[in-house]
Amino acid sequence: MALIVQKYGGTSVGDLDRIRNVAQRVVRTVEAGNRVAVVVSAMAGETDKLVAMARELGGDQPPPREYDVLVSTGEQKTIALLSMAIQALGHRATSFTGAQMGMLTDEAHSKARIRSVDSARILAALEDGGVAVIAGFQGVNEAGHVTTLGRGGSDTSAVAVAAAIEADSCEILTDVDGVLTTDPRIVPAARKLDRVSYDEMIEMASLGAKVLQIRSVKFAMNFGVPLHVRSSFHDGEGTWVTQEEDVMERLVVSGVTYNRDEAKVRMKGVKDQPGVVGRMFAPLSEAGITVDMIVQNLADDGSTDVTFTVPKEEYAAAMERSREVAAELGAAEVEGDENIAKVSIVGLGMKDHAGVAQRMFTILGGEGINIQLISTSEIKISVVIEEKYAELAVRVLHAAFVESGGAEPRPES
Amino acid sequence: MALIVQKYGGTSVGDLDRIRNVAQRVVRTVEAGNRVAVVVSAMAGETDKLVAMARELGGDQPPPREYDVLVSTGEQKTIALLSMAIQALGHRATSFTGAQMGMLTDEAHSKARIRSVDSARILAALEDGGVAVIAGFQGVNEAGHVTTLGRGGSDTSAVAVAAAIEADSCEILTDVDGVLTTDPRIVPAARKLDRVSYDEMIEMASLGAKVLQIRSVKFAMNFGVPLHVRSSFHDGEGTWVTQEEDVMERLVVSGVTYNRDEAKVRMKGVKDQPGVVGRMFAPLSEAGITVDMIVQNLADDGSTDVTFTVPKEEYAAAMERSREVAAELGAAEVEGDENIAKVSIVGLGMKDHAGVAQRMFTILGGEGINIQLISTSEIKISVVIEEKYAELAVRVLHAAFVESGGAEPRPES
Repeated sequence: MALIVQKYGGTSVGDLDRIRNVAQRVVRTVEAGNRVAVVVSAMAGETDKLVAMARELGGDQPPPREYDVLVSTGEQKTIALLSMAIQALGHRATSFTGAQMGMLTDEAHSKARIRSVDSARILAALEDGGVAVIAGFQGVNEAGHVTTLGRGGSDTSAVAVAAAIEADSCEILTDVDGVLTTDPRIVPAARKLDRVSYDEMIEMASLGAKVLQIRSVKFAMNFGVPLHVRSSFHDGEGTWVTQEEDVMERLVVSGVTYNRDEAKVRMKGVKDQPGVVGRMFAPLSEAGITVDMIVQNLADDGSTDVTFTVPKEEYAAAMERSREVAAELGAAEVEGDENIAKVSIVGLGMKDHAGVAQRMFTILGGEGINIQLISTSEIKISVVIEEKYAELAVRVLHAAFVESGGAEPRPES
Repeated sequence: MALIVQKYGGTSVGDLDRIRNVAQRVVRTVEAGNRVAVVVSAMAGETDKLVAMARELGGDQPPPREYDVLVSTGEQKTIALLSMAIQALGHRATSFTGAQMGMLTDEAHSKARIRSVDSARILAALEDGGVAVIAGFQGVNEAGHVTTLGRGGSDTSAVAVAAAIEADSCEILTDVDGVLTTDPRIVPAARKLDRVSYDEMIEMASLGAKVLQIRSVKFAMNFGVPLHVRSSFHDGEGTWVTQEEDVMERLVVSGVTYNRDEAKVRMKGVKDQPGVVGRMFAPLSEAGITVDMIVQNLADDGSTDVTFTVPKEEYAAAMERSREVAAELGAAEVEGDENIAKVSIVGLGMKDHAGVAQRMFTILGGEGINIQLISTSEIKISVVIEEKYAELAVRVLHAAFVESGGAEPRPES
């Protein structure tokens, strides 16, 4: 008998028939001898409708406290409906709003951070085969105000609940079979991974894989909650996201990801002197612009070129600020480019294999793809290339590292 | 400066434009120097949609706890949206769910009774011109479960809030000008009453007037909360429902009401003996059937006829039970009739005027309307007649008692 948290997203509970399907799966899991707490999102489309209403009455920045009161009704509807559907199958079910389960957060409306979860209430509901049906995405702050967790909040809620009740696993039910080695729309040979480490998953999520929200994976890693990403359409095993020690097959490259959502800014001919880079980025940081990759090249004349990437929606603001800074610093020029893509390979096995980066660059070069920027960590290599080469790069890297020799197991251990 | 509770029903907040209108009216009341707490219902149609979902998943009797979690989202949406609309007009507003304002109820889901309201939280929100926007119809029980108050719950919530914060008045904003002397669809000369007593209003509400829920009027009477029933379309004075002492103009007849929702059951030839009437009604009571009027006629042979009325939707069950009882008691026959109407006249001044009943019967007799049952109290006379005469009876009684001499003020005082 295991203690399991299952999380179903908005599409899985998108209408009453789907809610019935979810109820059946939950009941099947209970009847297999498990204790089950379910975390659900709002029905697909519901949150968008509520947000549209909020915008119409409250403008682009609706009052945050009332915004959270409004959008939290979406999940509240789902928990009541799913509880009814489970009860209609002859099982006990108790719904919990964020406040009712004691999902205590900080004060930050619409992007609240979880402080604690009252596990006793949930565990009591699970006694004798009962099911706890929990509203994802929402909490309550010290003052008793409703808060919401922001993007990907339901995954994070599920992990927080799993951590609090010390669940054996947290299942993320989704419309794909698990975590894939790359986007199957680009590479039909993409295959499901059986296991990946938290670190790999965090890199893959931050580099473009959409299956899990990075925040929930970090949370799972911090609390040691094994995540099981699996299909909501069938009962087959999905991908386990777990500690590095539990990942037997340390692939050199577990995944190939891409991201077209960034743009590049280059400030040329900055006079190199101590603190100049700090002065360059301070105004961007103050403007709330998120800088991702940064590369600095020193020229022979003692001046320096700095290139960095930002999210596309912050590109215009980044260019404006950079031009102001360039004027102050006496820089020669600011150039921008929106037609870029970031392509990355991620894998635990890179730690043990030298020459992976060299091999990646050679493969891309062989296809005539010019590399503009490079960023590496222990377990990933990212390159920025011209956007039009993104699919080609993903295909050739997947073929070289995943479909063929890349899947070689770790030499020792 | 007055402390005012305003209650807006589902039609008044039926779409975003109407919510904006309500916000404007609230702000106007605040800017006139008042402190205002607003109690709102779900947007028109919202509750019906939620109930339909509950029925589809949970059957005719959806699980009560989850049913309340579901339907309470309706009012929660309204409070958030109205708070946003008020803030968009440059005023402070804070929303309160039933749980947040400490509307503590008993355990009875879907028909909970209010135990207490935490006035401190609401009063704090009203400081410095802030508006408290409160979800009607919902509360929370000791265990922290969401409860709802059942039919007319939002009126009752408003009165409970008004009582708790010791408001100067509780305004019920509606689509009519106030409490009318009768249904204007039947009698175009129906006029708005300036003041009625709680007792009159309770009689009128229980006899067919739809403008206020009887439960909220009783609550207002018990706590001495002055109710002000007024139009949501204009700022004109409506009808004050208040203590008898404050009703200056004690009309003999304040209102003429009718009700077609009852049916009649007659048990003939019951052998009269002690306790026989009790034995007759016990099975009906056990079946949850609400008996309204009861009349017993003793025949010369020592047998008795008992006639009573029940709500039409309980008529079939009442007939069935009555036939069983009749068999046990050796009664001769059970007859039923669904084509009846109850027509009533209500007025405080009846206490001081003899002969009102006699005059009523004479007027109806003059129109050839046969009276089947009669029920009286200090301030009302009800008769059951053939349904087809209902409008005629209302018209002639209104003409005689309200439009002409009936409006004469009380002789003394």
